[in-house]
Amino acid sequence: MIKPRTPPGVMELLPRDQIAFQRMLDTIRQTFERFGFLPVETPVMELSEVLLTKTGGETERQVYFVQSTGALEKGATDGMPELALRFDLTVPLARYVAEHEHDLAFPFRRYQMQRVYRGERAQRGRFREFYQCDIDVIGKDSLSPRFDAEIPAVIAAVFERLAIGDFTIQLNHRKLLRGYFEGVGIEGEQQFTVLREMDKLDKRGEDAVRETLAGEGFNLQADAIEKLMAFARVRSNGHDDALAKLDALGTGTALFEQGRDELRGILQQLRALGVAESRYALNLSIARGLDYYTGVVYETTLDAHPQIGSICSGGRYDNLASHYSKSKLPGVGISIGLTRLFYQLREAGLVTTAESSVDVLVSLLDDDGLAHALALSQRLRAAGLNVETQLEPRKLAKQMQYADRAGIRFVVIRGEDEIARGVIAVKDLRRGEQFDVVETELAATLQVEREQLRTQGLPA
Amino acid sequence: MIKPRTPPGVMELLPRDQIAFQRMLDTIRQTFERFGFLPVETPVMELSEVLLTKTGGETERQVYFVQSTGALEKGATDGMPELALRFDLTVPLARYVAEHEHDLAFPFRRYQMQRVYRGERAQRGRFREFYQCDIDVIGKDSLSPRFDAEIPAVIAAVFERLAIGDFTIQLNHRKLLRGYFEGVGIEGEQQFTVLREMDKLDKRGEDAVRETLAGEGFNLQADAIEKLMAFARVRSNGHDDALAKLDALGTGTALFEQGRDELRGILQQLRALGVAESRYALNLSIARGLDYYTGVVYETTLDAHPQIGSICSGGRYDNLASHYSKSKLPGVGISIGLTRLFYQLREAGLVTTAESSVDVLVSLLDDDGLAHALALSQRLRAAGLNVETQLEPRKLAKQMQYADRAGIRFVVIRGEDEIARGVIAVKDLRRGEQFDVVETELAATLQVEREQLRTQGLPA
Repeated sequence: MIKPRTPPGVMELLPRDQIAFQRMLDTIRQTFERFGFLPVETPVMELSEVLLTKTGGETERQVYFVQSTGALEKGATDGMPELALRFDLTVPLARYVAEHEHDLAFPFRRYQMQRVYRGERAQRGRFREFYQCDIDVIGKDSLSPRFDAEIPAVIAAVFERLAIGDFTIQLNHRKLLRGYFEGVGIEGEQQFTVLREMDKLDKRGEDAVRETLAGEGFNLQADAIEKLMAFARVRSNGHDDALAKLDALGTGTALFEQGRDELRGILQQLRALGVAESRYALNLSIARGLDYYTGVVYETTLDAHPQIGSICSGGRYDNLASHYSKSKLPGVGISIGLTRLFYQLREAGLVTTAESSVDVLVSLLDDDGLAHALALSQRLRAAGLNVETQLEPRKLAKQMQYADRAGIRFVVIRGEDEIARGVIAVKDLRRGEQFDVVETELAATLQVEREQLRTQGLPA
Repeated sequence: MIKPRTPPGVMELLPRDQIAFQRMLDTIRQTFERFGFLPVETPVMELSEVLLTKTGGETERQVYFVQSTGALEKGATDGMPELALRFDLTVPLARYVAEHEHDLAFPFRRYQMQRVYRGERAQRGRFREFYQCDIDVIGKDSLSPRFDAEIPAVIAAVFERLAIGDFTIQLNHRKLLRGYFEGVGIEGEQQFTVLREMDKLDKRGEDAVRETLAGEGFNLQADAIEKLMAFARVRSNGHDDALAKLDALGTGTALFEQGRDELRGILQQLRALGVAESRYALNLSIARGLDYYTGVVYETTLDAHPQIGSICSGGRYDNLASHYSKSKLPGVGISIGLTRLFYQLREAGLVTTAESSVDVLVSLLDDDGLAHALALSQRLRAAGLNVETQLEPRKLAKQMQYADRAGIRFVVIRGEDEIARGVIAVKDLRRGEQFDVVETELAATLQVEREQLRTQGLPA
């Protein structure tokens, strides 16, 4: 006998949690589709040679390689195995766009919601297999900055519909940042090393970072450091304040002005899209993916749960697929790490066990009722309800108890009494009510009940 | 520069094909949920020790093992690698049910739609990564034969809704088969070896199989062989004929009678469930999974495309998880290999390129129209439509051409002329019509148009 168990670092859910998770996936997908993004799925296994052109250091150490029994038996090969599991959805996107370049229409809006794999050290809350839900827009040769505003509008819609609490999409811009650095005399490579230190403000605190920047290797003047700190402290509160804060930064280099103009354009477009102004803010301390992003960058936080950190991040990049294509493919995108998010929401008590995906249990009191129960179940299904049929008679109390534990809302009962009165009894376990309906109206009644609560904003 | 390409044996789709594939997945999932099946997802990687208890021979040779960079660097280990990719959804189900036995309610109806991995020889139409869409009902200690009839009812609903042509769910029963063998004097192990030969009837033809059964190793008498052939030729046409064909088999052993009674019960229940009688038939030549299934077995074929073979198969088994649990867990289930099915439907011209998941393109004629286009897009989205906004102005003809190629049905236009007349123009590319509506009625109009065609049975 083998002990049944999963490997460490994976999240496997019981059915009711899986239903809750699936509803989040569905909401995200539906919202992505609302904004015109098209679905892409890529194989979990890529050719190692193709997958690993771009990585180095930490990521490469975390790659999972795949070998068939046959390959293993042949013994260790000299190089790396032929196949590897994807560790994100960005490299497969780059490969996909380059491979299918001539069959795609640009700008190409795609969403992809699949699992990715990383050989992380096993540790609570760290996952070796986890869902990423990505959207990206890829242009050919160029991509209008207008797409930079669509991304946060999608994300705002996603998190509003997920209803997991107030959130803020924080915006910064690499051109604004680097242009500001230029303005205080920080040029070229030093911009990246300074950025790397600034990125530690949250963890190390202002004093420690000041000290580093003044010290050997940086030798920044006190007034330059002061300006950097003031810049990184900029946060906006509301739409007009964001514009005012941008104005208050004074004049700067051409790069700085370009970044500021693009940020202004994003703010203007977010307003035109009707995104509530509480949903977005400037946060000029955000840096992200130092050697990857080149324009706007996004981070999203839950207002009541800052400790969770960013739940959705991304930004603009200059060239997606330089390893695979001579075409220039600029893009902008964002990613939700749903497995980690779900895990943390559960830890914080923000996701509770969902009602079942089953709407109705058609109960069965004796064998004579089977044919009727089966036919009735089919009629309810035809009306769009999810129905479980009790196939073996049991005591009604047991069937009720089962439905209650399973999170099934309605139990339909047709006992001697109901038959005599020509009705069907419905027990609504959510409301704790029982009522009678004539059979011809049962499907419509249950649909309406379900719909009403949905409109009231309760989970359906 | 690396050539961007996928490994052999995977199916990667362009967006419009992915949309068609996704619609099939959605239809299957929705139908599974209609019948009260609950979602389960398991990790793609299982512990090798847990995954490979049960397999042997061909399957084990096809397993993909997984190793992180770190594990590879440590060098070849003596035994097999710690992790392997699942090669079906049945072994993970067994592991899942045994692991979570005390948290699940039995009978446990679960569906699972995920990809599985097999190191098949690379060959056209053979996949190393493919979707399986499985349903199973697992009982604890026992499981009523009534569940055997629910499975084909689900499958009938799935294939009716997929609308890929007429199909027949073919039924046989291992007890009927083995009981019949007993009746002609074939006992014990010989039942399996004879069954294996009978299973080759399709490929080898009756004469060749007769010869084998008469020859060394079998030594069956001519009249026994004749009876076997007559049995295997039994096909029914319609509900009453199925019952009559069962009656016409004469009396048999206790095992035979038990199998026949269960088949009669299944037929009776399929009728009560309102499954059209053209959708199911007896086919007493079906054997399937020789050492696994113990009761009813199912195979589904497309009436117009017998060469595709079974598109959905399964049956009843006695004990799901004997390697992981002391509990007896009988079950019944069925599996659709969707990747292979989609591939073959496409080869046969039965799946055509789908309309886009995007319903509406909001066009943009000049920069002044941007704010309005964005706001209008959001209103249409709020009404449940999937909307792409043209963010950079282009010639209208180009935007039309783009929508047409992308399979987007509606293009919404607001030029000078429309502004002057206080309307929005809608081009319906599917119908080749253009009409005007006032803006306040646009969302409702597009919804109704979409809904009408859906009700008429056209793809929505």
